[in-house]
Amino acid sequence: MPSETDLRSVILTGDRTTGPLHLGHYVGSLRNRVALQYQHKQYLLLADTQALTDNAHDPEKVRRNVMEVTLHYLGVGIDPTISTICVQSALPALAELTMLYLNFVTVARLERNPTIKDEIQARGFGRDIPAGFLCYPVGQAADITGFKATIVPVGEDQAPLIEQTNEIVRRLNRQTSKSVLPEARALIPAIGRLPGVDGKAKMSKSQGNAILLSASDEEIKEAVNQMYTDPDHLRISDPGRVEGNVVFTYLDAFDEDREAIAELKAHYRRGGLGDMVLKRRLISVLQTLLAPIRERRLTLAQDRDYLMDVLQTGARIGREITEATKEEVMDALGTFRLDLRS
Amino acid sequence: MPSETDLRSVILTGDRTTGPLHLGHYVGSLRNRVALQYQHKQYLLLADTQALTDNAHDPEKVRRNVMEVTLHYLGVGIDPTISTICVQSALPALAELTMLYLNFVTVARLERNPTIKDEIQARGFGRDIPAGFLCYPVGQAADITGFKATIVPVGEDQAPLIEQTNEIVRRLNRQTSKSVLPEARALIPAIGRLPGVDGKAKMSKSQGNAILLSASDEEIKEAVNQMYTDPDHLRISDPGRVEGNVVFTYLDAFDEDREAIAELKAHYRRGGLGDMVLKRRLISVLQTLLAPIRERRLTLAQDRDYLMDVLQTGARIGREITEATKEEVMDALGTFRLDLRS
Repeated sequence: MPSETDLRSVILTGDRTTGPLHLGHYVGSLRNRVALQYQHKQYLLLADTQALTDNAHDPEKVRRNVMEVTLHYLGVGIDPTISTICVQSALPALAELTMLYLNFVTVARLERNPTIKDEIQARGFGRDIPAGFLCYPVGQAADITGFKATIVPVGEDQAPLIEQTNEIVRRLNRQTSKSVLPEARALIPAIGRLPGVDGKAKMSKSQGNAILLSASDEEIKEAVNQMYTDPDHLRISDPGRVEGNVVFTYLDAFDEDREAIAELKAHYRRGGLGDMVLKRRLISVLQTLLAPIRERRLTLAQDRDYLMDVLQTGARIGREITEATKEEVMDALGTFRLDLRS
Repeated sequence: MPSETDLRSVILTGDRTTGPLHLGHYVGSLRNRVALQYQHKQYLLLADTQALTDNAHDPEKVRRNVMEVTLHYLGVGIDPTISTICVQSALPALAELTMLYLNFVTVARLERNPTIKDEIQARGFGRDIPAGFLCYPVGQAADITGFKATIVPVGEDQAPLIEQTNEIVRRLNRQTSKSVLPEARALIPAIGRLPGVDGKAKMSKSQGNAILLSASDEEIKEAVNQMYTDPDHLRISDPGRVEGNVVFTYLDAFDEDREAIAELKAHYRRGGLGDMVLKRRLISVLQTLLAPIRERRLTLAQDRDYLMDVLQTGARIGREITEATKEEVMDALGTFRLDLRS
């Protein structure tokens, strides 16, 4: 007797709690999550355990950002009565599943993971890779399967992580001769990654090229005014380039008046349109977008009881689901089970 | 206000639940544990989670042997009201601590561990080392520190595992500027490893050279009669060699009449003492040793309620201790803590 909810897919998404979220997160994921929460059953994981795999030297930062990211979620319009927000460290079954899955993945396989290879290089770990970091794709497999998620929104560069998850799923289903876990598919956003204000491919707080979701009107103005446009567009009358022009990339991402933007692009290309006109438009668009997010965030930040309630409720729901999955997996494998309820 | 118990050391010991225990276990550890339980606070870990690191293809074997090993413990005289017997998989805090510790150990360090190197070779893993197997020393660090054990009885070949644990302990204490965890020391048994009945260095059920603790009188007799002695001792009147003579090694380990054994050795060396006399003596010694163990084991095996009670009680105690340690470590590090009790 399938109820209405059974027909919806289960989505698992979330963020490492290592810093405040910015416009790049908004375009790449947050905006979609707000839409998806009405169509599917969505779980948002505040991945503080995973965040420690490359931040073990600074747990304080990870701790602080659990609440920070929660505020951003609520600020952009994630509804905690529809989406479930779970703190990863409050779900011990995920650690237990990770320990189990580690036995079904070889070290060589983990070292071959292209995402991990890139990230090891980016972090400059060299030979000193923390074991936890090498193993984090297995932790993600536990997260995804723990919630029995079938849709996982990720950036293109993270698709190999879903493949690693599905390899574990297939291995377990084969060994137990049961469909104990579902396979998941990556949901890669249509809009690519938002560049930094300096034109670099990746927006990142540590690179100082990000506009945070908490940015004030003044900060937005300052950031947009410094934005990379067309370095050859010296006089207003010169023809300008639209491709690689960050202001246009942002207008494409945030300005809903597609027609006006098309006209502005044509005008810019033939010359006679100054950067300042475009920047003023973008400033206004971003200020209009971020003002209510910032306000909601500030109001909620003062209601600590409500925030704790959101996290506690989410953790209780998450515990129940992930515990149940762990039990199912262990039962299917036939491991020893001790009943401690009585 | 330290109570009497605070002055005792905490011992963690245990076994992977992969097969029935044999005389080698008895000499190397079980016998000592029975003695140590009266002097210290002793925890015995039924390491079913760790057992899966090289038995993921056969969880059923691991499951079955949880009860098997428990019966052996009780059979040899482990008193569950004094020692605490814990099933590892029933203690989720150990998985959580393992996940945390993995971030404080590099992959290169794990690969350098001499115990792991030997074991990888022995198991023929080659390049296909399960990640869980490479990481199991970190799991052991979680076991040892989870119980705040300061004494860990291990074979000489396992001393590097204690060193790995202490490296993690020092790293955590340094980072938190607190003595949050104690270091542990290896307790290496005075008597070395008991050889197999065939004279091979290691007794092992899979090699067919073991005398199980559950062996019947007839099985003991058969095993001892096949025992490797001195291949050059052809006639009774010939002088015989005592060194490397498995019968004498066993008599040294199990016959408490040191004086009689010294005399027998002298007699054997000068000639005139047949193997059969020695073997009959050993058969009698082993039958006397194993009969009450076997009987107790058989009686207890029929009392499933009692066994479950032992395991449930042990798991509840173990949970409380390991949860508390996890909380202390996380608090010292300053990670995010969500109170789910209310």
